[in-house]
Amino acid sequence: MPNTQDVKALVFDVFGTVVDWRTSLITDLSWWGGQRGLKADWTAIVDAWRAAYMPAMDDVRKHPERGYVILDDLHRRTLDRLIDQFEITGLSETDRDHINRGWHRLNPWPDSVPGLTRLKSKFVIAPLSNGNVALLTNMAKNAGLPWDLVLSAELFQHYKPDAETYLGAARLLGLKPEQVMMVAAHNGDLKAAQANGLKTAFVPRVTEYGPLQDRDFGPEGAWDIVARDFNNLAEHLGC
Amino acid sequence: MPNTQDVKALVFDVFGTVVDWRTSLITDLSWWGGQRGLKADWTAIVDAWRAAYMPAMDDVRKHPERGYVILDDLHRRTLDRLIDQFEITGLSETDRDHINRGWHRLNPWPDSVPGLTRLKSKFVIAPLSNGNVALLTNMAKNAGLPWDLVLSAELFQHYKPDAETYLGAARLLGLKPEQVMMVAAHNGDLKAAQANGLKTAFVPRVTEYGPLQDRDFGPEGAWDIVARDFNNLAEHLGC
Repeated sequence: MPNTQDVKALVFDVFGTVVDWRTSLITDLSWWGGQRGLKADWTAIVDAWRAAYMPAMDDVRKHPERGYVILDDLHRRTLDRLIDQFEITGLSETDRDHINRGWHRLNPWPDSVPGLTRLKSKFVIAPLSNGNVALLTNMAKNAGLPWDLVLSAELFQHYKPDAETYLGAARLLGLKPEQVMMVAAHNGDLKAAQANGLKTAFVPRVTEYGPLQDRDFGPEGAWDIVARDFNNLAEHLGC
Repeated sequence: MPNTQDVKALVFDVFGTVVDWRTSLITDLSWWGGQRGLKADWTAIVDAWRAAYMPAMDDVRKHPERGYVILDDLHRRTLDRLIDQFEITGLSETDRDHINRGWHRLNPWPDSVPGLTRLKSKFVIAPLSNGNVALLTNMAKNAGLPWDLVLSAELFQHYKPDAETYLGAARLLGLKPEQVMMVAAHNGDLKAAQANGLKTAFVPRVTEYGPLQDRDFGPEGAWDIVARDFNNLAEHLGC
């Protein structure tokens, strides 16, 4: 076993690492659109929606004077823009809210729930996601994610990879950074976690972005654990 | 059923409402003290410890310039004073930390886990406690409390019954105050929750303070639900 015997809590990136946001959203919106008689290229919309994610958070980071904006609201701003851009007409406020809450209805990767259940027997497990608390809470109810508690960028008023998120998670858990392990499918997230003293585990999710995947096919740092999936992570950690 | 059909989340007072802090601590410390060969009046110590709870939080409230202090640290300050007062000698730092973490090891009332499990099937359930996040998280692991997320005064840097706690809980849950129901064995907590727009449920815990119980034998306000215990609360709410 790796040098992780002091780890007491595992915190997880969520979008891409725990849930398959792309397949979930395309499936969810295609079904809903079909029921509603709406024709739209939902795949292109979902990919454009996600492409706006990093710039939207960067904008919050660069303008602290405007205050923190939760991810639900960033998603909604982008969505309203995309609805115009893709020339989808006739959508009510209720429709827009339903689409936006697609992010609350994402499905887990097949190994996520069984792996988390095993890990929970030995560790405190929590998301540490840029999703807001309500989004992560509703997602967990929908997807059966057995979190012990919900940690979110919203609690720290900073988006990952800002240091406040990783250090804030350790502080709320009453632990030292090295007693917390960040689990992610994204090397950038792990790099920031490691720089702030957390332990790190990489789990590849090479189909996250579908044909658009252009990174994170494998580990690109000296991570404490590299695991095939969450069940394999549980094995690495003796669960 | 009462007019509670819009309620989406239930938030719970914890000390006294979900867990029997007094019996738990007296039992835990008497056992530990016996193993360590320590003679002490643990019942008197536990009662004195809890009696210092409200004044300690009031002190934080009255001195915002000193910053928020989490409950673990308030408990520890009181404990150190009581150890002197009760003339208990020979306690190491590890011993003191172990005693202080007795609050992380509290046991639920017999109906708490079955009742919460039923309520979780229909509602988001969370503590809304003056305990800090780590305390509540560790308690849930020990006691098997199936929270969806952990809400704590620590997240709002205000102790109940400050408005920031009730309104902050609704905000993090993405709900209006009237979509959140506060569950407590304490009329004062419910009064503050109701004043801030939350729905309210009273569950009596008439043995909470043992022979020192001098209040909260029954409902003292127009609460939305009065239930015998958590299973009865589940029945009231159609779970």
